[in-house]
Amino acid sequence: MWSTIGELGEFGLIARVTARFPGTDDVILGPGDDAAIVTAPDQRVVATTDLLVETRHFRREWSSAEDVGRKAAAQNIADIAAMGARPTALLVGFAAPGGLPVAWAEEFAEGMRAECAFAGAAVVGGDTVGADAITVSVTALGDLEGRPAVRRNGARPGDVVAVTGPLGLSSAGFALLQAGVRGPEGARAESAAAGIGDSWQRCLSEHRRPRPPYAEGPAAARLGARAMLDVSDGLVRDLGHIARAGGTAIDVRTAALVPDPALSEAVALLEALGSGGRGAVQHILFGGEDHALAAVFSPETDLPEHWRVVGSVAAPGEDGPRVTVDGAPAEPQGWEHFR
Amino acid sequence: MWSTIGELGEFGLIARVTARFPGTDDVILGPGDDAAIVTAPDQRVVATTDLLVETRHFRREWSSAEDVGRKAAAQNIADIAAMGARPTALLVGFAAPGGLPVAWAEEFAEGMRAECAFAGAAVVGGDTVGADAITVSVTALGDLEGRPAVRRNGARPGDVVAVTGPLGLSSAGFALLQAGVRGPEGARAESAAAGIGDSWQRCLSEHRRPRPPYAEGPAAARLGARAMLDVSDGLVRDLGHIARAGGTAIDVRTAALVPDPALSEAVALLEALGSGGRGAVQHILFGGEDHALAAVFSPETDLPEHWRVVGSVAAPGEDGPRVTVDGAPAEPQGWEHFR
Repeated sequence: MWSTIGELGEFGLIARVTARFPGTDDVILGPGDDAAIVTAPDQRVVATTDLLVETRHFRREWSSAEDVGRKAAAQNIADIAAMGARPTALLVGFAAPGGLPVAWAEEFAEGMRAECAFAGAAVVGGDTVGADAITVSVTALGDLEGRPAVRRNGARPGDVVAVTGPLGLSSAGFALLQAGVRGPEGARAESAAAGIGDSWQRCLSEHRRPRPPYAEGPAAARLGARAMLDVSDGLVRDLGHIARAGGTAIDVRTAALVPDPALSEAVALLEALGSGGRGAVQHILFGGEDHALAAVFSPETDLPEHWRVVGSVAAPGEDGPRVTVDGAPAEPQGWEHFR
Repeated sequence: MWSTIGELGEFGLIARVTARFPGTDDVILGPGDDAAIVTAPDQRVVATTDLLVETRHFRREWSSAEDVGRKAAAQNIADIAAMGARPTALLVGFAAPGGLPVAWAEEFAEGMRAECAFAGAAVVGGDTVGADAITVSVTALGDLEGRPAVRRNGARPGDVVAVTGPLGLSSAGFALLQAGVRGPEGARAESAAAGIGDSWQRCLSEHRRPRPPYAEGPAAARLGARAMLDVSDGLVRDLGHIARAGGTAIDVRTAALVPDPALSEAVALLEALGSGGRGAVQHILFGGEDHALAAVFSPETDLPEHWRVVGSVAAPGEDGPRVTVDGAPAEPQGWEHFR
């Protein structure tokens, strides 16, 4: 009997893992051949890829294997949704040391499967190789259903900036993990002493398993969104992409950034733990990885309730395209790799 | 001034590298947005992904950055061709330590660009992250041009097995590198003393930059190929996939496996260096990474000259689907990850 993927071997692992992945109407050919075949009904395919590296993007002591699988899938599917497309398929590369427990690989695959099922997509192919650190590559494909893609460059002066999905929770969850709080038992005494409820726990789960509002991507496209992206590096930094791509100035109004109660509680708990720093609004402005959607609409758009207008688009001033917060320059504090 | 990718930073690197990647008629939207958009004229897209890890799949002291880029692109594009499809686009994930020279990353990107240009495809997107070891993910997309895909499962008793492209050269090149021969100067005296010409050097270049016969994939599909794959793990092992997928027995005739002169010279040089082991035919049967194409055709097919018939398909015997060599069982000696 084997317990590590090294004992099970590459082909044994592939056989066990691919058995988990059901097809959908979009899957013409799934795993097992030189390549997969996926439908592309409108004669275009949307495609995006990400790499996740252990200790840089996730830690096994902070996230379960299923969390890592769900998050890796989610961040790529969110990129498809942010184009206004419907996700159809994922391809997954999995590099890991031979000593990795088979159970970890299987739970990771289960996370992939579950997130794909939630988004209506399917895992159609992949690759497994040996490596010293767990490294995951995910490529997501999508279908624009005959619509134009919603790119980053369509914002015009007078437009409104709106968001849907949680903001700041993942960032606060990361701060809690850094402060040593990994679950309810990690801060029970402190939160009771500070009179804080337990909704802060949602920040941990949002960090481990973000829940991007996938269906809102195509819905925003149908509403006529002029620009859209998913908030992966922080609202200010990501809106900066829209400002520069369209040659506009974007102002975010902090009064419109109503923190989720879970975020407010997490900030209070972090203060009580002596690990305070960012306020709730700062987590919203500068925290990443929630994979909420931010989009620009014409001011006449009748936005559904779950889109919150948080800012406005203007012609650029002397400083050129940029993002301000309540009219003042905002320093991006996002993450940059290699540095 | 920067000299490492850590000094240049993620966004600086992305800007420098993506500037190299020209579009093609298939590229609707290239790098720079949440996702790329690629044509899928026949309403299907073929997709495959691979991961390459430094020291496991390549060594910086054995291969140039451009070699690594070309080979990473080639092995994925070959998978697209092996379905009978025309390659359209690549997405590339690039993980590397901050201390990596910018020049290495740029030359890697140039290798990607050059191989894509050779195959008629384009790099349309990617991701760059920090990691301790260079790790590259490549996803290739392709277009079936209205044809059925050529899968692995269509072989029938009476069919012929044919190959096109070099076989065994990459494996012999790997053996030369392992023996310390990295270029002409590495074995000048020995090859002269043994009366060997210099064509063995091609084995080094085929190992570093395999040249899969991309156009032969769609051409084989038009000829009516019933099964096809690219030879990445060795002819015997890869034909085993076709045998099992189609429930047939495949026999390879060694008399039909005429070694390329470069392979024969490399084997002679390895003997002269005291590093002999595999003969030329063994390199052909069990050596991988050439990414030649192996296909099964009806015996009536009028095959062009560059397809060499090397075996035949029969109904399986008592031992079930398998590959034999000159009628005798052949032990696969391919590479398996994690073990």
